[in-house]
Amino acid sequence: MQVALWNVSKCAFHFSSVINTTARCVCVRFLSTYKTSHRQSIMSTVSTPPILHAFDEFRHYDTADYNFHVGAPHPDELMQLSRVIQQTVQDIRAVPSEVQSSYFQYGATKGSDSVLQHLAAFLTQEYRAPVNWQNLMMTAGASHALGLVCNVFFGDHDGVVFLEDPTYFLAAEIFRGFGLKVIPIPKLDNEQYDFPLWKRRLDEGLHGIRADGHFRGLIYIIPLHSNPRGRCLSPEEAAALARFAADENLVIHCDDVYNSLSYTGSIPPRLFPVGSHPNVISAGTFSKILGPGLRVGWLESTKENIDRIALNGIIESGGCANQFGASLIDRMFLNGLLQTYVKNTRNLYKEKMRLAVSILSEHLPNNVIWHKPQGGYFIWLTFPEDYEEFLTNVLVPEAKRRNVHFQLGSRSCASRFCNGLRSTDDAYTCTSGCQNSIRLSIGHLGLSQLPEGLKILCDIIKKR
Amino acid sequence: MQVALWNVSKCAFHFSSVINTTARCVCVRFLSTYKTSHRQSIMSTVSTPPILHAFDEFRHYDTADYNFHVGAPHPDELMQLSRVIQQTVQDIRAVPSEVQSSYFQYGATKGSDSVLQHLAAFLTQEYRAPVNWQNLMMTAGASHALGLVCNVFFGDHDGVVFLEDPTYFLAAEIFRGFGLKVIPIPKLDNEQYDFPLWKRRLDEGLHGIRADGHFRGLIYIIPLHSNPRGRCLSPEEAAALARFAADENLVIHCDDVYNSLSYTGSIPPRLFPVGSHPNVISAGTFSKILGPGLRVGWLESTKENIDRIALNGIIESGGCANQFGASLIDRMFLNGLLQTYVKNTRNLYKEKMRLAVSILSEHLPNNVIWHKPQGGYFIWLTFPEDYEEFLTNVLVPEAKRRNVHFQLGSRSCASRFCNGLRSTDDAYTCTSGCQNSIRLSIGHLGLSQLPEGLKILCDIIKKR
Repeated sequence: MQVALWNVSKCAFHFSSVINTTARCVCVRFLSTYKTSHRQSIMSTVSTPPILHAFDEFRHYDTADYNFHVGAPHPDELMQLSRVIQQTVQDIRAVPSEVQSSYFQYGATKGSDSVLQHLAAFLTQEYRAPVNWQNLMMTAGASHALGLVCNVFFGDHDGVVFLEDPTYFLAAEIFRGFGLKVIPIPKLDNEQYDFPLWKRRLDEGLHGIRADGHFRGLIYIIPLHSNPRGRCLSPEEAAALARFAADENLVIHCDDVYNSLSYTGSIPPRLFPVGSHPNVISAGTFSKILGPGLRVGWLESTKENIDRIALNGIIESGGCANQFGASLIDRMFLNGLLQTYVKNTRNLYKEKMRLAVSILSEHLPNNVIWHKPQGGYFIWLTFPEDYEEFLTNVLVPEAKRRNVHFQLGSRSCASRFCNGLRSTDDAYTCTSGCQNSIRLSIGHLGLSQLPEGLKILCDIIKKR
Repeated sequence: MQVALWNVSKCAFHFSSVINTTARCVCVRFLSTYKTSHRQSIMSTVSTPPILHAFDEFRHYDTADYNFHVGAPHPDELMQLSRVIQQTVQDIRAVPSEVQSSYFQYGATKGSDSVLQHLAAFLTQEYRAPVNWQNLMMTAGASHALGLVCNVFFGDHDGVVFLEDPTYFLAAEIFRGFGLKVIPIPKLDNEQYDFPLWKRRLDEGLHGIRADGHFRGLIYIIPLHSNPRGRCLSPEEAAALARFAADENLVIHCDDVYNSLSYTGSIPPRLFPVGSHPNVISAGTFSKILGPGLRVGWLESTKENIDRIALNGIIESGGCANQFGASLIDRMFLNGLLQTYVKNTRNLYKEKMRLAVSILSEHLPNNVIWHKPQGGYFIWLTFPEDYEEFLTNVLVPEAKRRNVHFQLGSRSCASRFCNGLRSTDDAYTCTSGCQNSIRLSIGHLGLSQLPEGLKILCDIIKKR
């Protein structure tokens, strides 16, 4: 029996050491009725704490901390969402039985016409440009969507994936799970795409791989308010990407998860002709604008691509990837709670970002290079090159000691994910300063917590 | 503009011919408040009807019909579920905010400890044998689970899948999506496994494929109350399969979706040592005992296998495949509504099956060979070999004319799915009588509809 004091989340309690289902169930039931502070006084020894959600698995999560690490909403925001969901489920009572029962039946593979049409109307308003419902299908969130696209277009043959550097730190593992070669997008010193080198990398990467009418590879990008840099592609970059993808028979997968969190009055004009360009797919999600636990998102592409994705075996067998979740979304479009919630979330996050930018502008030393994001969750701070050791060995532990958490830039480095060909010309050595950068997420902090947390961080930085 | 009269579901209405999102939304809102019969009188021309769920996509679905085709619950049963979900969501109000907010947060990759422990307690009671919560993880249903297992164990390399013949008619497409070779399990004339031939098939199928520490292939089975035959594996068959899988480094994927629908008093003793045998995975689901639209299921295997599956890139990125759905299940375990619902469902389906068996026993001619299922959804009727043409050309259309629908056995034939090596010794020619069999599902009919539908079917059969 291993008994240890667990105080990461500042609560500690006792669990049966033997894996005894019944005993643990009772324990969980009991605990779930008590607040953290109460638990602390009642129980004192521990083997493992109960895991509620993903961040408990990381063991560095406490809502009282200043958590700039996780790209997820604050629990108070999710309590608002809970109330909206409760009200929406109440509304279901009035829905005619033919429709109501369909919420619990195998869903149409793309989602019901109703939710697709409401989503199209919503996106048309958000983008200020028409979105056709026949270019949409529902998914179980952006990660599911990315896996689905890999499955449909690369599941039964090999291929190459090109990533921005830095990129979303959990994307590469999805690609590797499908046996795809992962290669960073080659760029010139001025941050422009190096298309001639890119073409060579593609040919090298595809050595021995036949495409046979499939896409030859995938370009994975986060075009708006990117993770981790908070940057947007320029229309010129997007146009060049689309041309390259068409010329080389590649598919561009846009992880469009932060689009609705644009803070400049409206979402920037669409960068790609998503519904009409056969080489472009856009994956949206309600994770950041409602809540990640709902697991509802969507794919937008040409009707031909959407039809093909909806024919995937898993979708054909199980129907809509999240039928009840998508049905709740449909009802929330109808009762208007969704539109209001998104507006409020956008305003809240706009204020969080304004506050964060204002504090960092005031307190960060001048040698830190950073860009003020116009939307999304993330701020990317790049320090002088010789700060690498300081970030890892001083800033992380010292900040942690003062209950401030963030993510080292190296986690987002695309070069470290490469499992493709190795090159002799250092193309795979990070040139984006990931090692001397850090990522801050504004998602998980309340407005009242945010200033103090950032001030602590700047305070430690300034001491170097 | 294409205007056509659509009357498959005996309702017809008008849609804007131009794809006009706003207009169609209004149309759907309007329609969703009217019953089919009302719509019919209001509207008379049509382009496409609105799609609510998967069966609308099939275009042969009407709840007034005798639908022995679809393996899904009756809408009235799903209305019961809707009420249970409404009550459960109401209960959420009383849940402490720390726990309540977690329902909408990124879920722990395997699901919360709480839902896993409640599920383990439930399964322990159902199976009358201990199930350890650390051998479980939540999924988004059995189809998602099967795709996930393929992704984790065969996503980045090739492999072979062996299927029972006949088998679940939508499984093969999932395997093909991962580029796996699909081969029927070789059997002797007496229905015993032909292990020597199986070993040869495996070696042929793996020609040129290196496993390198991975499983070499997958055996896909539905051990209890199988789709489509309604049969259970014998303990001896299961033991032989487990030995073969261990010897040949194959993984057995048990689609355990009908286990709780056992009608003989209790679920038969477990056929495989699921939590301890490294070559066995069991996929369960709430689709058949609650509702398919919830998209919640689970995987059970050794902790090592579960840990590996939970490290899948898509799961790592999105968290629990259906966090809110799994949280509802957790609450339904706590308020006891789930256990009661499953008991009621089991009793209802037991009665449906008893009634179906009694009517078929009385009205089917003697030359039809069939087995009385002890659980599940399906009855498999095998006719004399020279009935093939009669089934396709007479029984299907004549039954349809009288509003009775069922599935031809050929849909479930594993041999037709084969994309593996072609053999010269006819091993891939169906030897299971699929061409002269039909599948009846009792799932979608109410008790009151069932007798009349079966009598019509027997009536047509007897006329040959």
